[in-house]
Amino acid sequence: MDIDTLRATHPDHFARAAAIRVLTLDAVAAANSGHSGMPMGMADVATVLYSKHLRFDPKAPDWPDRDRFILSAGHGSMLLYSLLYLTGYEAMTLQQIKDFRQWGARTAGHPEHGEAPGIETTTGPLGQGIANSVGFAIAEEALRARFSDRVVNHHTYVIAGDGCLMEGVSQEAIAFAGMQQLSHLVVFFDNNNITIDGTVDLADRTDQTARFEASGWHVQEIDGHDPDAIDAAITAAKADPRPSMINCTTNIGYGSTAQDTSKAHGALTDADLIADAKKAYGWTTGPFEVPDDTKSWWESLGKRGAEARADWQSRYDGLSSTKRKQFDAALSGEAPSKLSATIKALKKQISETAPKHATRKSSENALEVINPIFPETIGGSADLTGSNNTKSGDMTIFSPENRKGRYIHYGIREHGMASAMNGIILHGGLRPYGGTFMVFTDYARPAIRLSALMKQPVIYVMTHDSIGLGEDGPTHQPVEHLAALRAIPNLQVIRPADGVETAEAWEIALQTTDRPTILALSRQGLPTVRTEHKTKNLTAQGGYVLAEAEGKRQAILMATGSEVSVALAARDLLQADGIGTRVVSMPSMELFAAQEESYRKRVLPGGAPVRVAIEAGVQQGWDRYLSGERGRKAKSGFVGMSSFGASAPAETLFEKFGITAEAAAQKVRDLL
Amino acid sequence: MDIDTLRATHPDHFARAAAIRVLTLDAVAAANSGHSGMPMGMADVATVLYSKHLRFDPKAPDWPDRDRFILSAGHGSMLLYSLLYLTGYEAMTLQQIKDFRQWGARTAGHPEHGEAPGIETTTGPLGQGIANSVGFAIAEEALRARFSDRVVNHHTYVIAGDGCLMEGVSQEAIAFAGMQQLSHLVVFFDNNNITIDGTVDLADRTDQTARFEASGWHVQEIDGHDPDAIDAAITAAKADPRPSMINCTTNIGYGSTAQDTSKAHGALTDADLIADAKKAYGWTTGPFEVPDDTKSWWESLGKRGAEARADWQSRYDGLSSTKRKQFDAALSGEAPSKLSATIKALKKQISETAPKHATRKSSENALEVINPIFPETIGGSADLTGSNNTKSGDMTIFSPENRKGRYIHYGIREHGMASAMNGIILHGGLRPYGGTFMVFTDYARPAIRLSALMKQPVIYVMTHDSIGLGEDGPTHQPVEHLAALRAIPNLQVIRPADGVETAEAWEIALQTTDRPTILALSRQGLPTVRTEHKTKNLTAQGGYVLAEAEGKRQAILMATGSEVSVALAARDLLQADGIGTRVVSMPSMELFAAQEESYRKRVLPGGAPVRVAIEAGVQQGWDRYLSGERGRKAKSGFVGMSSFGASAPAETLFEKFGITAEAAAQKVRDLL
Repeated sequence: MDIDTLRATHPDHFARAAAIRVLTLDAVAAANSGHSGMPMGMADVATVLYSKHLRFDPKAPDWPDRDRFILSAGHGSMLLYSLLYLTGYEAMTLQQIKDFRQWGARTAGHPEHGEAPGIETTTGPLGQGIANSVGFAIAEEALRARFSDRVVNHHTYVIAGDGCLMEGVSQEAIAFAGMQQLSHLVVFFDNNNITIDGTVDLADRTDQTARFEASGWHVQEIDGHDPDAIDAAITAAKADPRPSMINCTTNIGYGSTAQDTSKAHGALTDADLIADAKKAYGWTTGPFEVPDDTKSWWESLGKRGAEARADWQSRYDGLSSTKRKQFDAALSGEAPSKLSATIKALKKQISETAPKHATRKSSENALEVINPIFPETIGGSADLTGSNNTKSGDMTIFSPENRKGRYIHYGIREHGMASAMNGIILHGGLRPYGGTFMVFTDYARPAIRLSALMKQPVIYVMTHDSIGLGEDGPTHQPVEHLAALRAIPNLQVIRPADGVETAEAWEIALQTTDRPTILALSRQGLPTVRTEHKTKNLTAQGGYVLAEAEGKRQAILMATGSEVSVALAARDLLQADGIGTRVVSMPSMELFAAQEESYRKRVLPGGAPVRVAIEAGVQQGWDRYLSGERGRKAKSGFVGMSSFGASAPAETLFEKFGITAEAAAQKVRDLL
Repeated sequence: MDIDTLRATHPDHFARAAAIRVLTLDAVAAANSGHSGMPMGMADVATVLYSKHLRFDPKAPDWPDRDRFILSAGHGSMLLYSLLYLTGYEAMTLQQIKDFRQWGARTAGHPEHGEAPGIETTTGPLGQGIANSVGFAIAEEALRARFSDRVVNHHTYVIAGDGCLMEGVSQEAIAFAGMQQLSHLVVFFDNNNITIDGTVDLADRTDQTARFEASGWHVQEIDGHDPDAIDAAITAAKADPRPSMINCTTNIGYGSTAQDTSKAHGALTDADLIADAKKAYGWTTGPFEVPDDTKSWWESLGKRGAEARADWQSRYDGLSSTKRKQFDAALSGEAPSKLSATIKALKKQISETAPKHATRKSSENALEVINPIFPETIGGSADLTGSNNTKSGDMTIFSPENRKGRYIHYGIREHGMASAMNGIILHGGLRPYGGTFMVFTDYARPAIRLSALMKQPVIYVMTHDSIGLGEDGPTHQPVEHLAALRAIPNLQVIRPADGVETAEAWEIALQTTDRPTILALSRQGLPTVRTEHKTKNLTAQGGYVLAEAEGKRQAILMATGSEVSVALAARDLLQADGIGTRVVSMPSMELFAAQEESYRKRVLPGGAPVRVAIEAGVQQGWDRYLSGERGRKAKSGFVGMSSFGASAPAETLFEKFGITAEAAAQKVRDLL
């Protein structure tokens, strides 16, 4: 629908949508950077969505039963900021709009979750929003099944662009949402036919409608500027039992002289262009000034939301006190108080029986006692359930037929799984964990980074964490992954050595509320190294003395995970030679670095002449503890990998790559 | 088609296909690990493909005009190894089959390119093979346009499973192949409805035929055990001008008691099961024994290929000597001899004019002189052409209408781009490079890892390499990416400081033949730091003395890329205080580490008391040069990032995060 027709046929709507367009132009011009065209193109869809469908209350932005609005095409952030400002979200002041993309403002270049209420997730890396939305919709379904549709009954709305749909992760999300029949998920495809490099057909000629339909979605094609068509399509989408995709034909940079060009994708800052566009919108006020009647109308939408929330509150109040408690507990995101005692009991049992289990198996054993007492956990795997040991016996499968299921078959979709878990945890009410082989953290890395950036305690159960994976060979053997994950800020990497450390790692991961955790777990069986029961969670210190030197301390061996038992065996060899050797288990460098200097000094004192670290991965990251922390470069060594792995039985690989007790002991002898 | 019908109606075919099935069972049983079911299920397709369509010559496995066969479902490696053995590839001896998955064997758990001729690419990480295949098909089209279909006219055949098609990268590949109308690409979908966790519908209910059709593919659905249907489908696929997908309904573990179960996906090692299956195949010889007539028939296929190759050879011989030289030069993979002189001339000009350019712009300037003399380069970008500066003025766009185009609009598909580049370079004849923002190396990481594992010199042009990206904010600002990339074995990371180092970096990247290169380039303008022209490629040393201390050397500043000019400014401040300060530019840690000890000692001697490294990224990786290499932990410091970035103008960010000359100088003063 061209702008003249729209203005003539829907004058009120036109003026209201123009507020989004004008705020976008003004903010981008002030910042002299940003993306103008997308908010200008999608303003009509957003105006109809917010005015006729979206259930939200700016005074209670975290109201659990609100609809979620996710701007997957995050570069169009001014669309979201405009909406939050116009409808009266307190934190989104006019000054914030004026400070778009400036230091300290809530209005970052791309929407950052945590910067302002109403930003449901961080978007910008394309495809993430739509993949998150699958998690939001899963969480809604799961909580609705548990608490009834009286208190959980909302929708997840997404705006996705060509870029989101070209990114592979979108396919993982679309196929999975279709299979799961997530009926409360509605995706608007901003079909403006423009990317940065030119028209979409330069790189893509996919029939997106047919593509979604192939995965079982309800699909509609509409004029994305026609308010009646938008309204009707949303109504139909909500009525359909499938997830819905509304293919909205739009004009990027609508109403400006840059309309339908790649130029409009970026920052429109030309004064004449802006003046012309404002004229086309019938806009006469100064920069950032929204006419009172228009602003009032937008704010009235928020007030309508307050009524909906009050109705919800009375339904919530009508729940039994038990249900309310359960609901509040779920939404709190906190681990149950009895978790700690449960973990202690498990540890005691492991120390006493000293089994030889792979830590992936120990992880399963931990889950067997955790899941029954922590009803919010929702597990899953990217088609490696039996290998990741992620499903405890009490769990049933989450599916269209069983929304109470607490285990998700994510399919062969590591990236989609990670991104969905971000959505689940952002929604609130559930604690997701998911598994794959550790080497495939590479596939999921963009979403893992976002867990860390958003401070979300998603738990990644990454098994087969070294060449110990064996015959599958180098494509499946993580070598650089521990280092690469440790490099990500605000990510907690824990590589436990045995069943006790694994139980402790789970306790830490579940009690963490502000960052994600990677659990790096072995394929191969490992002896129990913590045979003396301690109630204290030693893993929480990151590194600790596992075995003290007998006699004069001449060497300190540091190791993680499967190499801790190698270090202990090396210590035996050295002690037999009369070389006093301490073994430090270092399950988490991040946690160790966070300890006080005095503690770290006790664990890694300067006195012992030689230090050797043993880890079946690359050395990067270890220098800090070899030549730093009172160590000396000339008297330190590393036993690990410097190349990709190979295909052979695990024991052969450790032998051939020289990651053995004898090699570690020899390294110490050479350095002494 | 059930096994009884197949045996009755196609007895010869049945016996020949059984050889694949039996070798698979025997090899997996001997290894006691592996994946039996897929080769057993796809043996009929493979037999028809190899006998009636695939053009190959086991005696000349690198014949440039051979058809390529890519096993995207790499876990079914025994299918490929069986075919190579049966048809007579010299390196694939029976002993290799017997040594499946053992140390030193060519028969790794997943097919590893380089281990044996006939393994066109490394597969196993799902989705990579099908995404590589797009690159193979692009290369074939591009070379055909350049050298005519007399010498370049072959097909790329792929076997992909459910897992490949669930991985997001497959969508990037499918959509792009459809848009590009890659008519010589044929994908067999092994539609066996089984994954590790159970039947496919546990996680996916996508109509794959409709999905491919939505992206413009020719699609067919056949019984994957019916030889006539397979043959007819391949014939139709070759005749169609679109890429073709043949949806083959198959039975995993065909003919065994585990048929159609998840168990068959893995290793079938039960002796009774194997005996029963062999009985069903009518197989009577001992383990690993293929009846002579069957083996002879398979070998005869290779001989037919030799005739095809001889025909090709006479067509090749008929080319003009100029064309033959061009063809050979292209296939050699080597940079033109005049590259070095061209780079030297560019360097001289930059040193003399000392422009202030972003290194991404310097990279474009380098490409402007490289591409005209290096006809094999084929550039591209994941929809950031103007930002990555990857298109030189002489390049036209590769498209169905212009196969001579040397620039590819890959779309918003970083992963698909990287994987396609792997395919292009593996095909031979072209030197691919491609750009995106450096933060999105995360999206492409699985394919970057495979470039390194396969020793393929793909060039990644990664711009906007730090918080210097500015307002787009933390989702777009790489912080941990340099460290994470440096952690990957056999990957060359180069972060040049100015136009001269950028030119040198391109020279290095293009002359490298055995590993990929990451070029980390700035968004923001940088002063020329190499104002004195040197013909020698200093960047090739990895690190070198850029500015010597005046007076007594008290400090060494190390920096890369955009922070080299910060180091020089810090040096000015320190020298003004009388503190003699050396500046070391360290564009590539990998290259520096490869220098001789004596050189490294000259650059980083032990004498200077203080060392400070400056890089707008995390510290991980720097400790090696701060406390190692004759440095001392107590007298070293780092100026960089320890958190994610923020959204603001670049200068503000460097100021706020304390990455400034003053901060670096102060760090030195504090340490002295």
